[in-house]
Amino acid sequence: MKNVNASIITIGDELLIGQTIDSNSAFIGKELNKIGIWVRHRVAVGDDWNEIWHVLDEESEKSDVIIITGGLGPTADDITKPLLCKYFSGKLVMNEQVLQHIKYLFEKVFHRTGPLAERNIKQAEVPDTCTVLHNPRGTAPGMKFEKNNKIFFSLPGVPYEMKGLMIEEVIPVLKEHLTLPAIIHKTFFTVGQGESVIADKIKNWEESLPENIKLAYLPAFGMVKLRLTAKGDDTIDLENQLAPYINTLREFVKDYLVAEEDLPLEVVIGKILKEKNKTMATAESCTGGYIAHLITSVPGSSQYYKGSVVSYANEVKENILGVNHETLRSVGAVSKETVLEMVKGVIEKLNVDYAVATSGIMGPDGGSTEKPVGTVWIAVGHKTKTIAKQFHFRFERERNIEQTATTALNVLRKFILTSESFA
Amino acid sequence: MKNVNASIITIGDELLIGQTIDSNSAFIGKELNKIGIWVRHRVAVGDDWNEIWHVLDEESEKSDVIIITGGLGPTADDITKPLLCKYFSGKLVMNEQVLQHIKYLFEKVFHRTGPLAERNIKQAEVPDTCTVLHNPRGTAPGMKFEKNNKIFFSLPGVPYEMKGLMIEEVIPVLKEHLTLPAIIHKTFFTVGQGESVIADKIKNWEESLPENIKLAYLPAFGMVKLRLTAKGDDTIDLENQLAPYINTLREFVKDYLVAEEDLPLEVVIGKILKEKNKTMATAESCTGGYIAHLITSVPGSSQYYKGSVVSYANEVKENILGVNHETLRSVGAVSKETVLEMVKGVIEKLNVDYAVATSGIMGPDGGSTEKPVGTVWIAVGHKTKTIAKQFHFRFERERNIEQTATTALNVLRKFILTSESFA
Repeated sequence: MKNVNASIITIGDELLIGQTIDSNSAFIGKELNKIGIWVRHRVAVGDDWNEIWHVLDEESEKSDVIIITGGLGPTADDITKPLLCKYFSGKLVMNEQVLQHIKYLFEKVFHRTGPLAERNIKQAEVPDTCTVLHNPRGTAPGMKFEKNNKIFFSLPGVPYEMKGLMIEEVIPVLKEHLTLPAIIHKTFFTVGQGESVIADKIKNWEESLPENIKLAYLPAFGMVKLRLTAKGDDTIDLENQLAPYINTLREFVKDYLVAEEDLPLEVVIGKILKEKNKTMATAESCTGGYIAHLITSVPGSSQYYKGSVVSYANEVKENILGVNHETLRSVGAVSKETVLEMVKGVIEKLNVDYAVATSGIMGPDGGSTEKPVGTVWIAVGHKTKTIAKQFHFRFERERNIEQTATTALNVLRKFILTSESFA
Repeated sequence: MKNVNASIITIGDELLIGQTIDSNSAFIGKELNKIGIWVRHRVAVGDDWNEIWHVLDEESEKSDVIIITGGLGPTADDITKPLLCKYFSGKLVMNEQVLQHIKYLFEKVFHRTGPLAERNIKQAEVPDTCTVLHNPRGTAPGMKFEKNNKIFFSLPGVPYEMKGLMIEEVIPVLKEHLTLPAIIHKTFFTVGQGESVIADKIKNWEESLPENIKLAYLPAFGMVKLRLTAKGDDTIDLENQLAPYINTLREFVKDYLVAEEDLPLEVVIGKILKEKNKTMATAESCTGGYIAHLITSVPGSSQYYKGSVVSYANEVKENILGVNHETLRSVGAVSKETVLEMVKGVIEKLNVDYAVATSGIMGPDGGSTEKPVGTVWIAVGHKTKTIAKQFHFRFERERNIEQTATTALNVLRKFILTSESFA
């Protein structure tokens, strides 16, 4: 089995001074990994000619595929293109197709009037030693180079432009040009059990895995994803080899298993509701609309999701959700009684089959000895039954919100799957 | 002026196979940059002994400060600690304080019963050649090493643990041990004008900047941040040198200027509302709660934010916000009339001073020739005045949602600042 290695090089001072988070590398790594290419290195360098040149030499020495992103924008600090031109001993030439595409974008998509700025025209110049990769989403084209039997791709740094080029151009080219190993991934998505507890449970089994099967732990906000990756020459053989390991791992984690795919909880819940042809809503206090955002980030969620009442202020809990003034006065907003009234209220007012409600103290302020920061009440229910649970998170605001949302979605998922049917 | 260079090394296969996005490096880069340390390299390597060893040699050759994150978790795939132990010629010893802290976390914070797992006890073992950095937020301690006059820090990969250690331990140590150059940053946060248009406008001025003053462009979802960074020996001198450049840049961008700080729009709006002692709410259809999430992610937002009606389904627009059935029937949900009724409805129902409403088609489905994907109506208003604007975005779902939220917040910000006072 021949291994194909890749390096991802991201260019731009903004990555080094920390003003942008590099989400591109993760996406590129995932896509390459799917087709059996191992990313052995990921490097970020600034807009520095010598640094970039050095990194190109370094990485292409050890990797078969080099993917470069960033540094192709229209602004002055971009030096990637002239450098690549020199590196691959070519000269910049105007590419008519790219120029026409840039003109089209400015007129028809950006609705700009007047002539193109010089810097935008210059974006249509490409090294004559590259193959242009059409970028329908932006003005900077992708470029493919070859040198000493290594393949280089240069992609714009704008994530959705880069993603399009990866899927539509880079991956097909790689599949065609390279003989890639067979690779199979199997992900178990668990919620409700910690990484180390799971790790202890499967320690011996994990150590017994053969060389070509790897297990990866991916903990995040109360979930742990366990991913088995098998690499070999033949897909059928791999599937047969992997099958027993998959069954054993399924047994180990069955109590916390959410899905046997790498799917977000909001997608899992969407699938369940579409299957059951049921609807849902949310009533959010401490999560402040984040659960609604997660659910509506899924295309087609309008099929089952009616909406949310983000009742940040108590008067909204009273006036819109019908929470009793007396409840709020006596036990407060962060209480079992309040979340139960919230979930009942939203089921009735939004006329849905299922709902989940959250109320808690996310911090940094608002905590007390009885109700410290991280105290959260979550209620779920349908028209004839509601239940509430208390949780204690111990993180900073951002993570408390994410953990509360994840937990609420999982409590809802379990409730939908276990609650008896109803009219 | 002596330059201090740093390298950030992130360890973990999960970064290379793209299952986690490396947000740590951005944070570390930002913090180092603030105190005048230039990050010249950022490298991600897998859980591979030789690769990690090689990268440590490589980076410490050229950088004065090396910050390593990841690979300190309790699971089997973590090899960072034994490697660092060998690399800095030490041996692993049990650290009593760390062990006590781990016990405390499991009992008091994680509320776990029973004895500690062996793998968790092992987390208290540290190389005897390191200085332990207390990590109050997690079980894995931070570590400081020194070798050939270079400083190395090893931090856990969990973002909020790493962040705490950077702020409370790493930065103070660096400030104390190193003579750092004076550095000043000035950020202009603009919305509503493209990167290349701004770049054209300031081209000549930008080229006239002295060596020690750099300009960075940071475009994102309809905003562009322009950041001036001046480096020198003396802060006062720098301020004097930078002042005229700041004034010129302010003039250039004054029409799109949102803030002279690197602040999210939701924070800017919060400041304005607190100043004016006014309240706000949101009525969201296509943004599905994302605007509410942005606003409530700001600590203390309950002072001015009452909530949101995420009216994803039309019946919610009617029943909760009081949008006329006839309006929805005749002109549809994505229309001027609907968003105007939505914003009026939410101002009245949630009894707030200001509100913003959104309705649009985010895609991938739901578009038509008259209303293609990306068509968005945004309305803002107060008790006696409401206005609506149409926008056309041309991105994929996720980015359309983000761009709509950013635009809506900016439309609201402008409205609050310009609308005449009212009872």
